[in-house]
Amino acid sequence: MRSVVWRDGVVAILNQRLLPHRMEYIECNSYERVAQAIEHLEVRGAPAIGVAAAMGVALAAFKCEARRAEELASEVKGAINRLRHTRPTAKNLFWALDRMEVLLKNLVREGVDIEEIKDRLVKEALKMAEEDVQTNRTIGRNGAVLLDDEDTVLTHCNAGALACVDYGTALGVIRGAVEAGKRIRVIATETRPLLQGARLTTFELLQDGIDVTLITDNMVGYVMKLGMVDKVIVGADRILRDGHVINKIGTYTIAVLAREHGIPFYVAAPWSTFDLETKPEEVVIEERDASEVTEIAGVRIAPQEVKVFNPAFDITPPEYISAIITERGVFKPPYDFK
Amino acid sequence: MRSVVWRDGVVAILNQRLLPHRMEYIECNSYERVAQAIEHLEVRGAPAIGVAAAMGVALAAFKCEARRAEELASEVKGAINRLRHTRPTAKNLFWALDRMEVLLKNLVREGVDIEEIKDRLVKEALKMAEEDVQTNRTIGRNGAVLLDDEDTVLTHCNAGALACVDYGTALGVIRGAVEAGKRIRVIATETRPLLQGARLTTFELLQDGIDVTLITDNMVGYVMKLGMVDKVIVGADRILRDGHVINKIGTYTIAVLAREHGIPFYVAAPWSTFDLETKPEEVVIEERDASEVTEIAGVRIAPQEVKVFNPAFDITPPEYISAIITERGVFKPPYDFK
Repeated sequence: MRSVVWRDGVVAILNQRLLPHRMEYIECNSYERVAQAIEHLEVRGAPAIGVAAAMGVALAAFKCEARRAEELASEVKGAINRLRHTRPTAKNLFWALDRMEVLLKNLVREGVDIEEIKDRLVKEALKMAEEDVQTNRTIGRNGAVLLDDEDTVLTHCNAGALACVDYGTALGVIRGAVEAGKRIRVIATETRPLLQGARLTTFELLQDGIDVTLITDNMVGYVMKLGMVDKVIVGADRILRDGHVINKIGTYTIAVLAREHGIPFYVAAPWSTFDLETKPEEVVIEERDASEVTEIAGVRIAPQEVKVFNPAFDITPPEYISAIITERGVFKPPYDFK
Repeated sequence: MRSVVWRDGVVAILNQRLLPHRMEYIECNSYERVAQAIEHLEVRGAPAIGVAAAMGVALAAFKCEARRAEELASEVKGAINRLRHTRPTAKNLFWALDRMEVLLKNLVREGVDIEEIKDRLVKEALKMAEEDVQTNRTIGRNGAVLLDDEDTVLTHCNAGALACVDYGTALGVIRGAVEAGKRIRVIATETRPLLQGARLTTFELLQDGIDVTLITDNMVGYVMKLGMVDKVIVGADRILRDGHVINKIGTYTIAVLAREHGIPFYVAAPWSTFDLETKPEEVVIEERDASEVTEIAGVRIAPQEVKVFNPAFDITPPEYISAIITERGVFKPPYDFK
């Protein structure tokens, strides 16, 4: 069950809005449909939207009827530009599009034949999907040593197989520990507004037979106070040079609570999430539609006329983060990524 | 629009499960129906369930067909016992039932005529409803001085008119400040699982023309970090001698975040919420059905088989609380209530 799959000229995206009730793939026949899937969160999770975008670029090339490489390049750049404007916060999206764009430029510059350019772009997207799975397995192994037998680990949102191509980052670390023979219990926060914890994390862990308990987001302080949490692990949408972590809204709240209770707070993410240029105050935090807060599963839960603030992410300063787990190893503070 | 009203032999309870979509009173013709309304949260909020329970006792007396005072007493005590087992955490419920029981005992001991006993019990319940409104207005005036012009105040759950008979405790303080001419903006947390903030607090404040913005519970840390919150005010379900505050789940999380950001954290509650006997570790925290978490408005949002932890309240230690606002004045730490 991969979140994004290339099927001979179709990008098949597992529709995460329908989970856990229905498992249905969207057959994207155009990069525009891939872009919409990213915008509407049918595919979500920083690594997954990176790979989905790369496949969207591959699809634009695959479908292109141009005769000359320059025409192809122009059309594919249009696709890259469209995909670049789907969501602003996760670094992996831009990392993936940049990688495809650089490859495209090089192939055109080298005068490679148009059919081979198409083929190479498709292969590159497929390679990124495979790399994602391997990277996550490495993250899982690297992070597993931080978890002890019989730990209860709290996680937020879904940084699992569904947020990536497969295996997951934060849940990858949990899977890594379980594969190493440790007994791990998980507490999953439901993660309003879009309930990725309730819908996706519980679903994934139940499928794997990993013990999981669901709580609402506002219970985090209390379960920590009760001594029910040994470690916290979350994913990331963007990590800055000095260790600021941008992740799903609610992450900062949990990080503050973890420090207050002396609980280690870990972040797990691939290197493609790192942004060594941008300063914390320059990061664009996506604000999404009010209806995500005022409606749940199509049912209105608040008065029509109420104002809403709906940031999709928040920023956690490095002083709250015990370690950052990547495929290149486990980093501890002070952070100075290069 | 009062939450609980006595209508000549009927206890009319505003069905808070239907708000903000429909405003509908449940006509309770028996104390059993009142007990069910408390259990099902058709009426909720510590002061409101205290008054509703007292009216349930009055109704049991009013409807009683006994000929002798002792029979009446026995029947009414049965009602008190039933109502005592509706919800375990809010002190006001037990305070109200104790007050009705003491009055009943005294009247029987004094040999008062059975019709007069009934009449006096009804009057006592009505008096408690009136006292509640007056108490809240006093709390509002007492607390208003803690708010400054142009403050943005974050509140959790609903400690408003709907949680009481009218006016409210935490929202009473906000109303008191607004009535004193201060411009106050409110941030309301939606308060999962039952969304009292999204459904009730926004509804009340919009009705009063007070500026309100709705957020999800996990946004609290981020809005504080952004400097959007000047003060926090919440209600309480039980306050212990040393200042431990038991209130809606999520309160403790907000209190920790407030202290981390140097934001004053206030609790507003009537004296009937105080429990000077019980120790923090002895307090019974009600755990409610898993379906409150796994379903929203009847729509299932999590896999069937997932485990859930659903405490309805949490405990905030006194060191996080800047002041406790009551009708007897504003108390600051160290707390030693008598």
